[in-house]
Order: sequence, then C-alpha cells, then structure tokens
Amino acid sequence: MNWLDPALMVERCSIFIRETMAAAGRDSLVVGLSGGIDSAVAVGVAVKALGADKVRGVMMPYSSSSAASLTDALSVAENLGFATEQVDISSMADAFLAVTATDDRLRQGNIMARCRMIVLYDRSARDGSLVLGTGNRTESLLGYTTMFGDNACALNPIGQLYKTEVRHLCTYLGLPESVLHKAPSADLWEGQSDEDELGVTYEEVDRLLVHLVDERLGLRQLVALGFAEELVLRVEERMHTMSFKRALPPVCAFAGRLDPVQAGVGFGSDESKDGGFH
Amino acid sequence: MNWLDPALMVERCSIFIRETMAAAGRDSLVVGLSGGIDSAVAVGVAVKALGADKVRGVMMPYSSSSAASLTDALSVAENLGFATEQVDISSMADAFLAVTATDDRLRQGNIMARCRMIVLYDRSARDGSLVLGTGNRTESLLGYTTMFGDNACALNPIGQLYKTEVRHLCTYLGLPESVLHKAPSADLWEGQSDEDELGVTYEEVDRLLVHLVDERLGLRQLVALGFAEELVLRVEERMHTMSFKRALPPVCAFAGRLDPVQAGVGFGSDESKDGGFH
Repeated sequence: MNWLDPALMVERCSIFIRETMAAAGRDSLVVGLSGGIDSAVAVGVAVKALGADKVRGVMMPYSSSSAASLTDALSVAENLGFATEQVDISSMADAFLAVTATDDRLRQGNIMARCRMIVLYDRSARDGSLVLGTGNRTESLLGYTTMFGDNACALNPIGQLYKTEVRHLCTYLGLPESVLHKAPSADLWEGQSDEDELGVTYEEVDRLLVHLVDERLGLRQLVALGFAEELVLRVEERMHTMSFKRALPPVCAFAGRLDPVQAGVGFGSDESKDGGFH
Repeated sequence: MNWLDPALMVERCSIFIRETMAAAGRDSLVVGLSGGIDSAVAVGVAVKALGADKVRGVMMPYSSSSAASLTDALSVAENLGFATEQVDISSMADAFLAVTATDDRLRQGNIMARCRMIVLYDRSARDGSLVLGTGNRTESLLGYTTMFGDNACALNPIGQLYKTEVRHLCTYLGLPESVLHKAPSADLWEGQSDEDELGVTYEEVDRLLVHLVDERLGLRQLVALGFAEELVLRVEERMHTMSFKRALPPVCAFAGRLDPVQAGVGFGSDESKDGGFH
C-alpha cells in the first residue's frame, strides 16, 4: 500500500495547525489525552507545530477507566514536554447515568465521551485555546465515534490519516512504545477492544478502505484481492449508515437563504464594498 | 420586507421532515422543549408533518430556570397533543460547575446547554428517534448558540427561517399567546434577554440580515436605509467571528483523501458496480 510518508504527514499537519490557528486568532491548544495512540500522535504533531508550551493535555478518567490509560497519557506528556491537568468525570457521568438507568454500554459510552467534550470545551474557554481533534480517517469513515463527544473539535490534523498511518507517525515521532503497542480501545469498560467491536483488524480494514474509498474498486475486484465479500458489504453499509456523523445536520432549504460563508460572501465592511460584497 | 408565507413555510418544513426521516429510516422525533418560541414552532411543524404520536417533548429545567418556562412548555405540548417527560439537569450541570469553579455566565450557560444535549441524545437512543433541531436563522448567523449544545440535532426544519418568521409561524399555527409574547431568553439566569445581549431587537436585526446576507447590500446602502453604521459593522464582524459554529471543523487535507459522501461516491455493493462506484 502507498501509505503517506511520515515526514510529509508531519510537515503538512504542522502547516495546517499553524495556518488554522492564525486564521482563528488563537495560539494555544487543549487536547483530551486518553492514553491511546490517536491523541498521542495528534498532540505530537501539535507540539512540532507550536512548541510544547502552547499545548495543554487533559486526562479525564471515569471510575472504570484503566489505570494504564492514565500512565500512558502521562508518559506521552513527559515525552513531549507539555503541561497536563486531570479532571475525573465520574461525578458528571454518574449524574447522567442515574437518570438514564440503562445497562446499554453504547449509551453509557456516549454519555462519557460527551462529558469529556464538555470539560474540554470549558477548559478551552477558560484558557482562550482551541480544542485539538484526535480522530483518524478509519474511525471517521466507519462512524466509530461519538458525535458531540470525541469527534467534537476546533481543528483536526490527523482526520484524513488512516489508523495504520497514525501508527507509522507514532514510531516516527518517537512516542512511547506502550502507546504504540497496546490494543486500541475506547476504554469504556474492562477489556473493550476496537477490533473486536468492528470485527476486523485495523490493518485489514485500512487496506480495504484505501481500495474501496480512495481507489474506488468494486466488489469483484476487492474479492479478487482477497477481501471477504461479507466484510466489503458490511464496511460499505457501515460507511453509508454512519455518514451523518461526518456531515452538518440537514436544514430545510428556502430559495435565497444561503449561509454567507458557503455562498462565498465576504465579510468586513469598508466603503469599497458598497453595492455588494465580493 | 418579503417574509416567507406561513402556509408555504409549514408545507415545505413538513415535506422536509418526512423526507429526511424516511431517508434516515426513523419515524419519530424527540425535542427539547424550553418554553420558548423556537422549540414551540419547530415541534408545531413536526406535529403537522408526522402527527402528535410521533413526537416527544423533553423539558430539562436547571434549578435556576424560570418556572414560567416549564408552564409554557407544557402549554405547547397540551396545545399540540404530544407526550412529554421532564429531566432536571441540575445534578448533571452542578457536577461540571463544581469542577469549573467559574462565575462566568457564558461558560455556565454552555455547560447547561450541553448537558441538555446529552440527555436529549440519550433519549433519542433509547427511543430510536431523531433529535429535532430548533435553532432559527437569526441566531445561526449571529452565532448566538452553543455548539454541541442547543445547536446539536439530527435535522432542523426552521434553521433557515428568521426569528421574525418564526413569530409569524407561531401565530399561524395557533400556538399559545404566552409563548409568542414573552421576551426571547436563553433562560440561563433571571432576567436574561437575547435582545439585551445582542444589543439590538430581533425585528431590527432580521431586517438588517435580509438586506445584508440575502440581498447583499453594502454598508452605504444599509446606512441609507436607516441602519446605524456601528450596528452593521458589529453584525458583520459577529457573523464572521461565529462562522465556525456553522461549519464542520477544518481537517488537514491530503490528495485523494475525500469523504466518500462529499466526493459523490455511492454506496451499496452489487455486482453491477464492479469497476468503480457511481
């Protein structure tokens, strides 16, 4: 597979971060540090782009979170040299769980992910910083995220990088081995594993997604390459069903009622603009 | 001003709701009922579109919320004949406020709006329903919303309607007078008023937005129509500064890495698709 070159990824992500932040008029970032590889790599490129003093990590354990998650998050912060703080979300999440009264782990997990979003956005408001996104292309295409939860961010440097490429970057950036080698997990309960839930390894599904989405191969071609027909159909169905997570919500349209940004209408009044924006 | 015709608005919003829900494969809605006019009108068109038995309202008071808000929400539900439930968000919000330790009303308000989003999305997961959006075009253009809070939804019938048109619809739909006549407020604290915070009445800013955004008049023309230059500049600046709230977050781009939906790539494998999607 033609995975992107790590040096290129870091360079492009750095430029993206600096340019996006300059446009927003902010110079610092806050990031939720899960102890996993995605947040480690996202914050790694952020430190490359801005320097460690412009980045702040927030660990947000729930009472059932693995202790190793916290250790790994701290080792990433130590490796990269940025400051951290810790906010235990147990009291917040438990207040919702008391009302929800469900043992559905998906609903519980969504509540936790959204509680973390609230904490992170409040921290960004306190500090005048932006929330750094840490989701990768694999989980975005598969919809393996919580809307308004872990996928909520002001900018995301790694959102078009496959999990496989995130792993390459982890090595390239010299991040801790423990982060690289542990089994990917949302850490919502003991023993949770992304790959068990998705029913496929990231290595296999990333190769499939490149052929399916980027190269636009068809079913027969994919089967000829060795992918199980059942897997191809399941991944396509999942991408379709979850596409709403990658889009703004549909709004009832009326003639002439466009968003000024989407319509390409400029801002910032001055006399020269009289008679219409450009 | 050429405000949209109420009968047309109801017809178009109804079709939009039915078509969007059919595409999503869901047949019921859940809506946060604040007691204000926007949620009343949004749920009013939803009941027109689907019938009252397909709509559920959730009132989510905080301890400092006005008692009149709850009364007004219930009068809307009674008027339209749909079922409601009540979830007090005080314990959830207070758990965040204890950690946040701020007297910044904006940060507090964002926490409350986001706690309501969590409850509403959990209810939609429980019931297999979709979350109905209730934000109007005025507040969207001005960014007078909480991201991942009150602006989080699965579909929004009234998002392109100005507040003035929402008022027209309120009358047209025969909704309670108390909802129509009370001062618009986010109800985050006693006496809060949208128009005080924005520094302009909805009536005036709606007329300005039509001229500025939809008709694309320039500063001199707007001043000639009687708008204060200071107001025009302030509204333009605000629309620009808040435009991020109406967009997906920027993601670092790489060649050939498009979202399959945005790239117009179809889904759903069958043999005829071999050799490329269409």
